[in-house]
Amino acid sequence: MRITTAGESHGKGLYAIIEGMPAGLTVDPAAIGAALARRAGGYGRGARMRIEQDEVELLSGVRDLVTLGSPIAVAVKNRDYENWREFMAPEGCDTSSRRLTCVRPGHADLAGMKKFGQTDARNVLERASARETAVRVAAGEICRGLLEELGIYVLGFVRAVGPVCDRREYVFSELAARSDVLGMLDPALEAQAMAEIDACKGAGDTLGGVLELHVWGLKAGFGSCMTYDKKLDARLCGALMSVQAIKGVEVGLGFSAAALRGSLVHDEIFPDGTGGVYRKTNRAGGIEGGISNGEEIVLRAAMKPIPTLMRGLQTVDAATGLSASAAPERSDVCAILACETVLEAALCGELCAVVLEQLGGDTLAAVKERYGRSA
Amino acid sequence: MRITTAGESHGKGLYAIIEGMPAGLTVDPAAIGAALARRAGGYGRGARMRIEQDEVELLSGVRDLVTLGSPIAVAVKNRDYENWREFMAPEGCDTSSRRLTCVRPGHADLAGMKKFGQTDARNVLERASARETAVRVAAGEICRGLLEELGIYVLGFVRAVGPVCDRREYVFSELAARSDVLGMLDPALEAQAMAEIDACKGAGDTLGGVLELHVWGLKAGFGSCMTYDKKLDARLCGALMSVQAIKGVEVGLGFSAAALRGSLVHDEIFPDGTGGVYRKTNRAGGIEGGISNGEEIVLRAAMKPIPTLMRGLQTVDAATGLSASAAPERSDVCAILACETVLEAALCGELCAVVLEQLGGDTLAAVKERYGRSA
Amino acid sequence: MRITTAGESHGKGLYAIIEGMPAGLTVDPAAIGAALARRAGGYGRGARMRIEQDEVELLSGVRDLVTLGSPIAVAVKNRDYENWREFMAPEGCDTSSRRLTCVRPGHADLAGMKKFGQTDARNVLERASARETAVRVAAGEICRGLLEELGIYVLGFVRAVGPVCDRREYVFSELAARSDVLGMLDPALEAQAMAEIDACKGAGDTLGGVLELHVWGLKAGFGSCMTYDKKLDARLCGALMSVQAIKGVEVGLGFSAAALRGSLVHDEIFPDGTGGVYRKTNRAGGIEGGISNGEEIVLRAAMKPIPTLMRGLQTVDAATGLSASAAPERSDVCAILACETVLEAALCGELCAVVLEQLGGDTLAAVKERYGRSA
Amino acid sequence: MRITTAGESHGKGLYAIIEGMPAGLTVDPAAIGAALARRAGGYGRGARMRIEQDEVELLSGVRDLVTLGSPIAVAVKNRDYENWREFMAPEGCDTSSRRLTCVRPGHADLAGMKKFGQTDARNVLERASARETAVRVAAGEICRGLLEELGIYVLGFVRAVGPVCDRREYVFSELAARSDVLGMLDPALEAQAMAEIDACKGAGDTLGGVLELHVWGLKAGFGSCMTYDKKLDARLCGALMSVQAIKGVEVGLGFSAAALRGSLVHDEIFPDGTGGVYRKTNRAGGIEGGISNGEEIVLRAAMKPIPTLMRGLQTVDAATGLSASAAPERSDVCAILACETVLEAALCGELCAVVLEQLGGDTLAAVKERYGRSA
Repeated sequence: MRITTAGESHGKGLYAIIEGMPAGLTVDPAAIGAALARRAGGYGRGARMRIEQDEVELLSGVRDLVTLGSPIAVAVKNRDYENWREFMAPEGCDTSSRRLTCVRPGHADLAGMKKFGQTDARNVLERASARETAVRVAAGEICRGLLEELGIYVLGFVRAVGPVCDRREYVFSELAARSDVLGMLDPALEAQAMAEIDACKGAGDTLGGVLELHVWGLKAGFGSCMTYDKKLDARLCGALMSVQAIKGVEVGLGFSAAALRGSLVHDEIFPDGTGGVYRKTNRAGGIEGGISNGEEIVLRAAMKPIPTLMRGLQTVDAATGLSASAAPERSDVCAILACETVLEAALCGELCAVVLEQLGGDTLAAVKERYGRSA
Repeated sequence: MRITTAGESHGKGLYAIIEGMPAGLTVDPAAIGAALARRAGGYGRGARMRIEQDEVELLSGVRDLVTLGSPIAVAVKNRDYENWREFMAPEGCDTSSRRLTCVRPGHADLAGMKKFGQTDARNVLERASARETAVRVAAGEICRGLLEELGIYVLGFVRAVGPVCDRREYVFSELAARSDVLGMLDPALEAQAMAEIDACKGAGDTLGGVLELHVWGLKAGFGSCMTYDKKLDARLCGALMSVQAIKGVEVGLGFSAAALRGSLVHDEIFPDGTGGVYRKTNRAGGIEGGISNGEEIVLRAAMKPIPTLMRGLQTVDAATGLSASAAPERSDVCAILACETVLEAALCGELCAVVLEQLGGDTLAAVKERYGRSA
Repeated sequence: MRITTAGESHGKGLYAIIEGMPAGLTVDPAAIGAALARRAGGYGRGARMRIEQDEVELLSGVRDLVTLGSPIAVAVKNRDYENWREFMAPEGCDTSSRRLTCVRPGHADLAGMKKFGQTDARNVLERASARETAVRVAAGEICRGLLEELGIYVLGFVRAVGPVCDRREYVFSELAARSDVLGMLDPALEAQAMAEIDACKGAGDTLGGVLELHVWGLKAGFGSCMTYDKKLDARLCGALMSVQAIKGVEVGLGFSAAALRGSLVHDEIFPDGTGGVYRKTNRAGGIEGGISNGEEIVLRAAMKPIPTLMRGLQTVDAATGLSASAAPERSDVCAILACETVLEAALCGELCAVVLEQLGGDTLAAVKERYGRSA
Repeated sequence: MRITTAGESHGKGLYAIIEGMPAGLTVDPAAIGAALARRAGGYGRGARMRIEQDEVELLSGVRDLVTLGSPIAVAVKNRDYENWREFMAPEGCDTSSRRLTCVRPGHADLAGMKKFGQTDARNVLERASARETAVRVAAGEICRGLLEELGIYVLGFVRAVGPVCDRREYVFSELAARSDVLGMLDPALEAQAMAEIDACKGAGDTLGGVLELHVWGLKAGFGSCMTYDKKLDARLCGALMSVQAIKGVEVGLGFSAAALRGSLVHDEIFPDGTGGVYRKTNRAGGIEGGISNGEEIVLRAAMKPIPTLMRGLQTVDAATGLSASAAPERSDVCAILACETVLEAALCGELCAVVLEQLGGDTLAAVKERYGRSA
């Protein structure tokens, strides 16, 4: 299974093709729409988000809401394309307007201009923008549908917004209680986080945070210890790291494990009295030796603060070589809820790929039957 | 370029094939040997390491120490295979001996037995073992040779051993001063770390740590903001995460960035007075928008403590279903220097792949010429 | 570079995403439109073709007709979707109508129903249909644009229509004279072929033929002798074989070479007096050892007759298990000109991928510069 | 599943790594050895073959002759390496001897020298040589073992040697009667072919031929009509075309289908009276719409005559630019039996990859169980 995406931020829309999804899976546009709405929301977002109201359009691979086994193409239109057509139309447009040359630190602008031989960072940022994640969410939600048919569930929450951090441990069954405001689980901390966002907004500054994702229901044996690039942790963390603004990823105890002795890190195994085993801890985050071990998968990711600041960062105008202030293209203070939504989708996408590689199968029925027989 | 590896821990040897290396690159067996020796050393290792003395054998793809453009096969023999032949020989052996059924927490043993339908964890652990990294080091060092021809250098050091952490910032030019004992840069901290290892050894326990890797000389423009799975950070972090015992990876400020405001995270850009630009900070770790930006690449990885403890962890004997103590297969307390060596090699391998994808080229001369013309 | 396609025959449209195309390439919608028109035409086509008038829409990756280096999404809408919406809409439709259960020999119907667990061959044939090639043509023509910037040209012609075969040898410069009626070069033979088509039509039967493709301007050194799946002939022939209705492919003399002695097959090499070399023959079809040798690439493909016959083939109704006649879904007698157009596009796509893998490059300027320096 | 190969013709040996083979498959070295012996034999071979006596060595991935699920590394040593060590040793050797500059038409020599920037064709031909196929045979035979566990059998025979062609149709059950002399089924024709080889040898010339391969027992549904590069015919033909000396491939009627009307090409379908169906013909060669249809797979390949002729072909000495005669590196007249052996192995390898992609599975038991449940 592979998800291929395309589309610019102010172009016609965002597009994705999912190859390798089995036939017989029901697609739920309402669920995709809800995820898109969640991605566009959250405390700390600016004005643009309100006009977006993204919707997914199913273009192919699905008939009467059921997959055919053929490539699934989906689109998320850009609702303000009409305002940008004159400057962005593939068929012909005025590229001398809407130029951006005061390259923004923290974005792909400067490096992308060098890479692609551009004198206008617009030609880079349109694709590098996190707008791309709208269609990754749409595709990821379709993959979530497959996982849920197997009894595999993915949920995440926001552990920290800037310096406001929730240090409690949670298990999967608690995560559904996350807020829709900032995605946190502790209301008191979320109130603190909102105040921090307000303060940041006043200062023209931005915030990131820490996100945590859990997978419940994945049986033991997915991923592989036999080939380095098939390791489950490598694949899932690579997928999370491919999301805009992510600067770190970890599994289970993650970086904390580095400071502890082995006897406090590894999860001892006990007989459950009925021929099976259980563990009292899950510090490994559900992955040992690059393979799922049947416990909850627990991943964490660090989101950097949004690099476009209302107060402006010091930079250079690539057109003149002179000092300049990086103009804000948009005005979010914190997009952590969006990021959480995107990470869930990215995780669903990669996990679905891993599961389908091991199970094979051309129909949902075959995939389910095979998963049912897995150890 | 792709590196394919094979081999079991107590089998005949470890093997790798590197495809896609251009013709004309000189291979330096002494440099590979030095890396293999470094991988086998370091304070905190047990007895087995002393017998290893690994050597690489070039099997193909190289003639008179120069690459031909054909696949490069290399081997690192297992020197104690003679003692294991009777239990491991592919051609026929006694598989009823050397069974391991008291599955070791933190290893692939239990999940791998389920996955591969085994009743003897020997059939899993032989490949899951970190012994595999010997040949990843050999292959990675060949890749380093290509990178160095382009003026790209990779070095790492050990930032933390268990709770002993060096919090200073370093730049690439300082890294060569790292110790060969534990790979740290601060002798006083390294002495503390050695004491911590001694204490751990006395307690029959183990330690991990934090490793930091820098890349110097990589021009702007490598990786891509255009496709999620071509992002440089996703690829490099995925490669590091694929190394045994790694539980977290981060770029630049990494998880620290999540707690800070944007104005303290992004690297402002200044004109250098000669038409170019410079930055006063490198909190991004050299990657913006999934593309190298010309600054040093800075990556960090968390190594968990070795999961095999002399004091034994509580587990279950898969043969009987009864409680048992996980028997130590080997007796290292801390393998952080080995891990650092392996991470450098893994990084060289993946970075070499990224660079060659963008430059193409069948000969070293063409690759160098193209890199020279890069922005 | 990779081309990913999606879309059903009577769905909303056909879609493709081209990843890995460098920035700076001008896209010519008129050229794409001309190829789409050619694909829809030719003597021997039925009524449906007349309503198609396919047009490409550029969705992303292009701004003001110039590529950005981002994924290029294109669409070819299905003009009769309005008539099929009620039976095909992804969002919901009546799947009990337009069922096809009298599985058609020569199509994917029967095998596809088994594979995907379907009771209605509609759910298979909609994607298996050669309609998919419309968007392969669109994508391939964009790739042709890149090749032509390098001075590499691809052209084909129809060598045989059913039993009417042109046995003359041609070189690239003669191919532009091919007809737009059936794609043949010899008017007298083409007239015979048209008569054969007429006769076939009268008999309710169908025809295939033989197509020949030439590449002019490809320098020596593309493809590789070093790895079996990088061989130029394997890649190009695999691409041609992936086109609907193709049952055979060959390079240069192809199957004829099997009957001849070596002295009549291999192309001797002569000094040209200025330090270079030349050959008097090109029986190898421009590929030796899996590498382009600088001569014209010459490929041939066999197209089987269209499997839907007006006279109906004997088959089974999968719904009843009883004998039935395969109902014609459409009424072409011969689609050889369309097939030729598609093969050119498929060849442009794969060749562009080969060239870009070896040259790398993020901009058209870099790609051209590197190709200019190639041997 | 992927097979990666390495090794030079006069280097230490040939090496392959098979990734993705499930655990629990028994490997039969005797069967591999028999295939290697068959590859080295056949009427028309020169003196070198007699010294080869190739043997496979299992290096990893197998314990007591059973696969572990880890990468399987195998080696086929070059028995005359001792005589070539001084000129070929990776560790250091005299590259000024054994130079080949009179580039041989029909080989990779000239194009490869340009590609890899070499002044000595030795550095190209050592890898381009068909010697590489020894290890493809070894790897392919391991794949055959997996296929046979599923009840899928691959056999081929020699249909034509030069102009001597057997035009009878055969089904799978007849193929085991093929000769070990030239691989033909008709003794009278084989005697003619041997005479033709003798005549060729007298003339210092060479011969190729036509090979046919059948697959028996492959169920319907393998390959896919949904994505062009998953089509079974494209994949299998691409694999055959990747074998040295192959210039054409076809499926079922192949090129013959191009000359016939549809009513004579497509395989009508009939009820078998028990709820199933059958066909009276198999002109499609077992593949419709890129999917196996449950009939025998029938493929044909054209082998060109060996390009090294004892009589010498006209060429140019790349060292001087002057006319020269291409010196024979070896003296086979016809290697058609070897080629047949290699094609079977290449087909087993690719087919095994297709089957495992669709079935997934980490153990042979799971793969068999899933195949048993396939339609």
